[in-house]
Amino acid sequence: MNEKIEELWREVRELSLGSKRSIERLESAPTPLQFHRNFITPNKPCIISNSISHWPSLSLWSHPSYLTQSLSSTTVSLHLTPTGSADSLTPLPSSPSSLCFASAHVQNLPFPEALRLINSSNPSQCVAYAQQQNDCFRSEYDSIVKDCDQHIAWATEAFGLEPEAVNLWIGNKHSSTWFHKDHYENLYAVVTGQKHFLLFPPTDVHRFYIRNYPAATYKYYMETGEFDLELDKPTRYVPWCSVNPFPSPENLEDEISKFPLYFNGPPPFECTVKAGEILYLPSMWFHHVRQSGDDGELTIAVNYWYDMQFDIKYAYFNFLQSIDYRSPTSPMMPEKLCEEIDFGPDDDETR
Amino acid sequence: MNEKIEELWREVRELSLGSKRSIERLESAPTPLQFHRNFITPNKPCIISNSISHWPSLSLWSHPSYLTQSLSSTTVSLHLTPTGSADSLTPLPSSPSSLCFASAHVQNLPFPEALRLINSSNPSQCVAYAQQQNDCFRSEYDSIVKDCDQHIAWATEAFGLEPEAVNLWIGNKHSSTWFHKDHYENLYAVVTGQKHFLLFPPTDVHRFYIRNYPAATYKYYMETGEFDLELDKPTRYVPWCSVNPFPSPENLEDEISKFPLYFNGPPPFECTVKAGEILYLPSMWFHHVRQSGDDGELTIAVNYWYDMQFDIKYAYFNFLQSIDYRSPTSPMMPEKLCEEIDFGPDDDETR
Repeated sequence: MNEKIEELWREVRELSLGSKRSIERLESAPTPLQFHRNFITPNKPCIISNSISHWPSLSLWSHPSYLTQSLSSTTVSLHLTPTGSADSLTPLPSSPSSLCFASAHVQNLPFPEALRLINSSNPSQCVAYAQQQNDCFRSEYDSIVKDCDQHIAWATEAFGLEPEAVNLWIGNKHSSTWFHKDHYENLYAVVTGQKHFLLFPPTDVHRFYIRNYPAATYKYYMETGEFDLELDKPTRYVPWCSVNPFPSPENLEDEISKFPLYFNGPPPFECTVKAGEILYLPSMWFHHVRQSGDDGELTIAVNYWYDMQFDIKYAYFNFLQSIDYRSPTSPMMPEKLCEEIDFGPDDDETR
Repeated sequence: MNEKIEELWREVRELSLGSKRSIERLESAPTPLQFHRNFITPNKPCIISNSISHWPSLSLWSHPSYLTQSLSSTTVSLHLTPTGSADSLTPLPSSPSSLCFASAHVQNLPFPEALRLINSSNPSQCVAYAQQQNDCFRSEYDSIVKDCDQHIAWATEAFGLEPEAVNLWIGNKHSSTWFHKDHYENLYAVVTGQKHFLLFPPTDVHRFYIRNYPAATYKYYMETGEFDLELDKPTRYVPWCSVNPFPSPENLEDEISKFPLYFNGPPPFECTVKAGEILYLPSMWFHHVRQSGDDGELTIAVNYWYDMQFDIKYAYFNFLQSIDYRSPTSPMMPEKLCEEIDFGPDDDETR
């Protein structure tokens, strides 16, 4: 079975994605039909330039003073973590040899204060990232919504739907997002700075060693500048990707031996999305996101989530995921099974 | 593994195709984008009415005299079989307990003579079916090509391609086509009579017990009205569906016990396509086709084959097909493996 799964990794690259590790680039917006035919249907990412050149945000948002003035009286959701790694696996404080799924401390703050914390982020103390994946751009950031289009017109026409959620992300190089996938079609527009993506097609699901981790949430004490990490009560488990693609050099060998399918399999599709560009991140693709900007520059992005079609591709994905990649060293529990388990408060957290 | 494969059969119906066994009907031509979004992308059939009402063929072709006059000096390919079952599995004459893949005797005849043979078809002697899946409409039937559109405009725009082949089918109720799938997107327009389809999604591949059968071809002796069936030389094997969905009553029990996944699994999507309607038959769908007409009426259809995308769906299909559905009574050989075997002339025909 393992060889058949590996053949699938190869074949999807050979037939459709290309084996060059690079993402196709379009120099202008596609027509809705071209976008549907060439990217949505084959579930294939692309980067689109010159499609949002008319957005006022492209010039306005690189001036922090514009943002603090426009949002002077706005309260926003700020995600605080000690390291900048959001939704990541972290050693359990009570049992450092076990990992938990650690969510950020979410602090509601006036925007100017939030921005001050982002700018003073320090990955050995506290990293702040303004984001909330609940349509925050259209709710929290109402006063600057006019600086961007309400939707990506050619994508909306292609999907036949308005976006389900539009999220704003304001951070800097200290923030990153751990590997995961979303059940949405995603149009990810970068307004300032740059986003760096590692992308893998859904067919590579076994390479991420998705396992159940007990959920925990950081608690930040503003006065002392210290974090606590506490398991959520009642206990709940989150199926999450186990792989950190950028382990520290001293852990590299250990990580490779724990996750050989990731490290020894086909390399990621890697891309940098610059200010003014949009990444089409197809539904169910695994992605890891980092960001950078010129000296002290913020990275600001707006992403549009459109409902995905739960069709034959999704059924095939679930089938693939239900199959064990058998390895003597790393037994797996398929994500779907995990989700169906009824986790009571007394469940063994190491399951 | 068997339960996982069966769960896939269920899930693709639940999520996308519906469990009502019926095919969605559109009362007018969809826009190219609607067609792409709602049918091509999810690989989902539909029947479209009122899209070819302007074709002169719809009134002209129901008069056999029009056809014989227009095609009086045209030579066409006529497929002759003793039973009317084209590309079907048939007992080997030399070893009646083994089956072969029997192709029709192809006779090139002036159209009026071909039509006479179609009309005098008798399923216990000789059944004639004018067809050739090599773009025959645009080559052999040049003089009546103007009676239909050269392509289905909204489909051509959706696929972004002209049709690769356009085939004409002229037969009557005595002709049928055994279960198979095509590596093409298919727009199947019925001009006179009715076509009756049994349809199954690609996810059901294991239910057809695709196995290698030695190829044989009928030879028809016009003078005696008799057929010979001879194995092709050099020997070649064709991977083909083993299931006959309409076994004779006395064979039914035996067929059910040989092919339980077909007979005991989810029922087919069944539809009748009438004159003036188009069936969108998505790539890789298994289909069995029968036809009928009013008393003595011909069934005439034109089908447009468009190149399919070999994308992630196709890679998933190949993966699924590479997996054995393990049954103690009916060991299987996956089609892909079969195709890769180098069949020499001395190969054992019962493989």
